[in-house]
Amino acid sequence: MSHTAELIAVGTELLLGNICNTDAQMISQTLSALGINVFYHTVVGDNPQRAKEVIQVARSRADIIITTGGLGPTCDDLTKQVLAEAFGKKLVFHEESARRIRDYFARRLPHRTMTENNLQQAMLPEGCTVLDNDWGTAPGCAFEAEGCTVIMLPGPPRECRAMLEHRVVPYLRHLSEGVIASRTLKFFGIGESMLEAQLRDRMLSMTNPTLAPYAKEGECELRITAKAATAQQAEAMLLPVERELEAQFGDLIYGVDVPNLESRISQLLREQGLTLSCAESCTGGLAAKRMTDLAGASQVFSGGVVCYTNQVKERLLGVSSRTLDTYGAVSKETARELALGCARLMGTDLAISITGVAGPDPDDRGNPVGLVYIGLAHGDQVWVRRCQLGSARDRVRNSAVLTAFDMVRRRLTGLNVIKEEP
Amino acid sequence: MSHTAELIAVGTELLLGNICNTDAQMISQTLSALGINVFYHTVVGDNPQRAKEVIQVARSRADIIITTGGLGPTCDDLTKQVLAEAFGKKLVFHEESARRIRDYFARRLPHRTMTENNLQQAMLPEGCTVLDNDWGTAPGCAFEAEGCTVIMLPGPPRECRAMLEHRVVPYLRHLSEGVIASRTLKFFGIGESMLEAQLRDRMLSMTNPTLAPYAKEGECELRITAKAATAQQAEAMLLPVERELEAQFGDLIYGVDVPNLESRISQLLREQGLTLSCAESCTGGLAAKRMTDLAGASQVFSGGVVCYTNQVKERLLGVSSRTLDTYGAVSKETARELALGCARLMGTDLAISITGVAGPDPDDRGNPVGLVYIGLAHGDQVWVRRCQLGSARDRVRNSAVLTAFDMVRRRLTGLNVIKEEP
Repeated sequence: MSHTAELIAVGTELLLGNICNTDAQMISQTLSALGINVFYHTVVGDNPQRAKEVIQVARSRADIIITTGGLGPTCDDLTKQVLAEAFGKKLVFHEESARRIRDYFARRLPHRTMTENNLQQAMLPEGCTVLDNDWGTAPGCAFEAEGCTVIMLPGPPRECRAMLEHRVVPYLRHLSEGVIASRTLKFFGIGESMLEAQLRDRMLSMTNPTLAPYAKEGECELRITAKAATAQQAEAMLLPVERELEAQFGDLIYGVDVPNLESRISQLLREQGLTLSCAESCTGGLAAKRMTDLAGASQVFSGGVVCYTNQVKERLLGVSSRTLDTYGAVSKETARELALGCARLMGTDLAISITGVAGPDPDDRGNPVGLVYIGLAHGDQVWVRRCQLGSARDRVRNSAVLTAFDMVRRRLTGLNVIKEEP
Repeated sequence: MSHTAELIAVGTELLLGNICNTDAQMISQTLSALGINVFYHTVVGDNPQRAKEVIQVARSRADIIITTGGLGPTCDDLTKQVLAEAFGKKLVFHEESARRIRDYFARRLPHRTMTENNLQQAMLPEGCTVLDNDWGTAPGCAFEAEGCTVIMLPGPPRECRAMLEHRVVPYLRHLSEGVIASRTLKFFGIGESMLEAQLRDRMLSMTNPTLAPYAKEGECELRITAKAATAQQAEAMLLPVERELEAQFGDLIYGVDVPNLESRISQLLREQGLTLSCAESCTGGLAAKRMTDLAGASQVFSGGVVCYTNQVKERLLGVSSRTLDTYGAVSKETARELALGCARLMGTDLAISITGVAGPDPDDRGNPVGLVYIGLAHGDQVWVRRCQLGSARDRVRNSAVLTAFDMVRRRLTGLNVIKEEP
């Protein structure tokens, strides 16, 4: 039997927009991996009547209800009250939980006096499975009643995450049948709508495995998901689909199950024993920041120069004043000299350069917003690509960095560095 | 009459946990500021039947329905179909929107062929107010029917944010009564729970204005919100509260109604005609990236060096090999020489340096994860602060950058650069 879950977050702070419902994302990911379908997320405030109505709706359309928040003393343990009532259960005092709460205060918060309302948190639905909270004070709980599985978790993301992993996953495992396996193909250089247009018929005709495209900040990904009795069977179902897609999209696919382009090029650099640096004008450090988001980056990435002024481009990176005067900072020639100068200055095998107009205004030579020249030096060779990358500052900067990374990827996998436009 | 809103996000990627429903947070904040109560958030997948049912539930409990997502060609414009049907409206072809979509492709994405399914996006409910999308292809729309206001927005957060600000707020203003004014005090150097503990009694006793603290990636903010008949009256109510808080928290408040620390220091640098650069080791370009997120940064920010290796620290920034040998890269002495070297190299009045262990592992001298030295040079003077910034890589890097920015802020406002620990 296939299960349907609804996640209900209780908390006025979510409805005011003070915080984002990251718990829902986290739980959704986990349930998907268990093969449980999440069909709804709901957020309701700290209001007993509305919470009660939300629970009624959820019962009518889901057989797993997972709540987050509303467990602590500040909201009168609203979630437990409402769910216990909805399923005709009493709240009873759970001695062991009370002891844990007292302990928690004594150990972690010795400077705070525990107020008596904290012990309210030990009131739990009769007959429930208590989910001990080793990461905060409010215990979670779970019960099954009237064909529905109910799980209540604390709201703070750190506690919710730990409880999910250590308490909920073991509890839920018996509910899920079959195993889900998935593989994610990562694309650069094709938009989501184009990808979808080319796959639409196939996507609609497939039921297991399924194909789903996602757009992600200038990149695109395609997830293949298969469900089978065993992990091995599910894996075997993925393979032919993956092969077909690779044949169809070729070098637009930059990796499989890698988080992003920077991970991919770090991996390639490491394999080939090469180092990279970058000279950034309009992206102002974003490329370096992304490369160093990865732990262990120093093996392959030496650093770079953020050359936001012409003076730095000239004095530090050796762009000739003639080039800057004749062609300007935003030019093929400057990008070329920046890339070569950066590799020399930083002593790296490869170097990226990025110079362009991130906006919001055109530059003083009248170059339009979004015009970016991206250089790649490898030894004596240099490639420069001219790109027009939209008009929003964030997007221009992000696309420029991705394009630069993709040039490195293409170089290190033996492709033409500058992709031929179709 | 007071309004009740429900936000409905349409998108299977939300239910799979691929993305987080940040749109709901953003819209909630905006509606709160307009004095419109948001009572529910709902997320449903790309499934017409379930979306239809969700709309029926929403109509029964809210008089403003705002949807996000499900407008593009990849989901067959599901949201428009379902809402038009729910309110008995036909979808009709909107010529002007079709023209805008064609234009958008021609201008922004000249290298991409527009697929015909993109024109589906110009099918809109008859008689609706079209909300032009200058930030993407899918137009939004709004209509009022059967006592309900329906607004549909694109899902990508960047588009949603722009549409919200420029299309929805003007559209909704006539629905809200009274005027909301708010002021946001920005804090650095105090945690949200500490702030809340110090304000709890006052917060609970206030009804208008209200006080609400928010935590934001290492910073903290406190929003004062007042509601009154006129903007002037609302503003006048804010002032005494702001004054009191300034008296209470002093230099922990770095600004009022400024987006972040980097904006604040850019403003100070500009006012004082000074320039800044940065030498970044463990933060790998994050400080430079944040400074250049701001348009017009080049007036005050010249750039910097990402010195991920000792070689770069020594050769480029002039840290002596003796210092590196004796004290190591993660040391007070290195931070000092980096800051001085960076100001000299980049020719700026001030320079920041950041060197530390971002993790996940201790460095080869056994310095623990989270240990960071942050230097600030201004002319001949240098200050270095030693910080222990937690254990998660992202958080260490983020806190290090904020601490560096705060040192600049303190310097430029005549405070002690290194805050005395309490």
